[in-house]
Amino acid sequence: MKKQSIGIGLMGLGVVAGEVARVLISKTEVLAEQVGCPLVLRKVKVLAEDLVSPQALEMDSQLFTTDADEFFTEPGIDIVVEAIGGERPAVEYLERAISGGKYVVTSNKEVIAKHGAKLLASAQQHKVGLRYEASVGGGIPLIAPFQYNLIANRIGGIYAIINGTTNYILTRMARERVDFSAALERAQELGYAEANPENDVEGIDAAYKLAILASLAFRSQVQPQDIYHEGISRLGSRDFQYAQELGFAIKLLAIAKQDDKSIEVRVHPVFIPEDSLLAKVDGVYNAVLVEGDLVGRVLFFGEGAGAQPSSSAVIADIVSAAQDIVLGVGNRTMWRLEPDKIIKPMSEIETRYYLRLNVADRPGVLAQISKVLGDHQISISSVIQKLADSIAQTAEIVIMTHPAKEAAMQKALQEVTQLTMVKEISNFVRVEA
Amino acid sequence: MKKQSIGIGLMGLGVVAGEVARVLISKTEVLAEQVGCPLVLRKVKVLAEDLVSPQALEMDSQLFTTDADEFFTEPGIDIVVEAIGGERPAVEYLERAISGGKYVVTSNKEVIAKHGAKLLASAQQHKVGLRYEASVGGGIPLIAPFQYNLIANRIGGIYAIINGTTNYILTRMARERVDFSAALERAQELGYAEANPENDVEGIDAAYKLAILASLAFRSQVQPQDIYHEGISRLGSRDFQYAQELGFAIKLLAIAKQDDKSIEVRVHPVFIPEDSLLAKVDGVYNAVLVEGDLVGRVLFFGEGAGAQPSSSAVIADIVSAAQDIVLGVGNRTMWRLEPDKIIKPMSEIETRYYLRLNVADRPGVLAQISKVLGDHQISISSVIQKLADSIAQTAEIVIMTHPAKEAAMQKALQEVTQLTMVKEISNFVRVEA
Repeated sequence: MKKQSIGIGLMGLGVVAGEVARVLISKTEVLAEQVGCPLVLRKVKVLAEDLVSPQALEMDSQLFTTDADEFFTEPGIDIVVEAIGGERPAVEYLERAISGGKYVVTSNKEVIAKHGAKLLASAQQHKVGLRYEASVGGGIPLIAPFQYNLIANRIGGIYAIINGTTNYILTRMARERVDFSAALERAQELGYAEANPENDVEGIDAAYKLAILASLAFRSQVQPQDIYHEGISRLGSRDFQYAQELGFAIKLLAIAKQDDKSIEVRVHPVFIPEDSLLAKVDGVYNAVLVEGDLVGRVLFFGEGAGAQPSSSAVIADIVSAAQDIVLGVGNRTMWRLEPDKIIKPMSEIETRYYLRLNVADRPGVLAQISKVLGDHQISISSVIQKLADSIAQTAEIVIMTHPAKEAAMQKALQEVTQLTMVKEISNFVRVEA
Repeated sequence: MKKQSIGIGLMGLGVVAGEVARVLISKTEVLAEQVGCPLVLRKVKVLAEDLVSPQALEMDSQLFTTDADEFFTEPGIDIVVEAIGGERPAVEYLERAISGGKYVVTSNKEVIAKHGAKLLASAQQHKVGLRYEASVGGGIPLIAPFQYNLIANRIGGIYAIINGTTNYILTRMARERVDFSAALERAQELGYAEANPENDVEGIDAAYKLAILASLAFRSQVQPQDIYHEGISRLGSRDFQYAQELGFAIKLLAIAKQDDKSIEVRVHPVFIPEDSLLAKVDGVYNAVLVEGDLVGRVLFFGEGAGAQPSSSAVIADIVSAAQDIVLGVGNRTMWRLEPDKIIKPMSEIETRYYLRLNVADRPGVLAQISKVLGDHQISISSVIQKLADSIAQTAEIVIMTHPAKEAAMQKALQEVTQLTMVKEISNFVRVEA
């Protein structure tokens, strides 16, 4: 029987959900033509406090309900759109929607990062689609390219700027040479950073997104807790000064690589060459560079967050789910896992390093440091030495190393701190070429 | 009845087709898991001369046939992959394959640019899929994002570097300050430019690709002949010098914009700000910047040509077509045209301009030129004047204008050439902000 309409149940009424509702209504005709029948918003799950939000005030309050159960049982709802955010109760809602035979669309990175494998398997079993394009990179096409365009590729690496808050802060630190706290404060004033910025600035948000991308690209189950993450709060304005002198930009990168046996996943600040495309990605923009065996390097760039870009992705998922319902297609994605690979421990990764040290301004200090590094098979590629404080008789030394193992570097750093001529290891940052 | 396998008929055996065949064979297992059954290469359409190509020598010659008819009637062939290139006989082959109920995949930009609308309508009528991801930008996802990810957006503009040959030449001219012919020669030596480079350097290839993207993005029928195109051979090394002094890069851009009534489509060299992302796209790389009402600005970057990147896109299309066959889905794309819009004549477009003039080195010459421009409502934003030749007593004047209508500029340029103090209009290039 040909469907007369596709019913949408929207769970949540935050800024993204509000925009999704607005677009469903304002673009009714265009969307109906893509699907073959109208998309009708049938219910909106709200909390009592949502009812006074600007989104709520613009909508027909008859759609509102506080009862989640209706979404999983009501025959008029074909697609459940989860835009509540957070792990719970969102994950239960998605599970129940899928078990109830509903197609689901979610923008929830935390749920997909932590429970994606289980939900995708359940969707396959119940012959419904689970789509989550908006969970990473806002409106930038990222999930679909891996599921479709890059399907023939063996993905070797992903290098991603996928947290707009930290990229905004780093851009400001680089341009204005302000310190972290000043840049964070400005980001908070502009609404780019939350009052409690931990999730963003410590790399947790980026780790969720990387877990999603790496799981998809490597056909594996990469969990957020598998991912090493380190934030940007240790960076100082002098690091940006030296980075520039050395021809680098500093970015918070989410990096995933695989070889035949292992997967490497990490989120931390890196020095990247200033003439690389990722170095040019400024402000709240996101960009994801993907390396495939056939396609070579491809890069996706755009606004990684915000109500409108995210709604672009959510609506695309809704249209695609609706097309499948009209066509009688259940689950489309082959959820296939490759044989388990080990997650490489952070101690075994190999990169170049930037070190900034505060030392006594005396002859022989560099020789001592070089010896410690050399003892751990770490060789130096360049050194900058500056007089930092003529009264305290201290100098600042900046060292760039050749590639070295993280374990060796950590041991060497411990020994370097023991040197009496070394006052402090001011910072160390990994370098990606 | 569940399919035991999906049969592929490959038409053509050039470098892309050869790579497609290689991947189908070397990645059999991975691809079969994505589809649910194996993809089997059943026939390869060759010409007599193909039989000695390196691609042919690696393959089972039993697959080869010179008879095209078999591809449209043989029940064992489910998907016809057209990789012959050129307008004819490719377009007839595609028409016959579609009429014969075959799903089709093509990498042929000329055929899709000229006959895409008719072929897509025919595919819809015959309930088969027509896919052409490889026709633009090699392995960079471009067609699928418009068909799926950006579907909820009204696309306002497309700004694309979609010809690798010219981008390589321009990069070389910018970096090494060599002239066009030297850069072209080097591109030919490296195999980036053909012996007859006209299609690339005159912007014809880019116009085909822009026709495809604009038709898709604007849901219109933009034909190659609707597109104004101008090549890069007029550019001289001095233009690059001035561009750099003024803070610009020079790129061959394919530009498409729409407003409520009209569509603007053009391919020509432009000055773009050197800190823009497109300015950083160097060498044979391609990049496409898209502006949507919801998504904002998104950019897609990668290798725009080559056997491996193109095969990545062709195989993705084959897998997607095969999935649809297995799922019993016929034509998936809603081929819907918006009400006809007029193509804006080139005379009505409005941009800023860069002018380089060779003039007599005498007082009053700038005043004369400014007056002519002013008479046509063109105002000047900056001027550089240099002594070019002290013996001939000529100088070079470089003028950047504020936005002006193309018609006004063309008329002004005609009048400027009449001024006795003006020896030559050395060049004029449009500027995109």
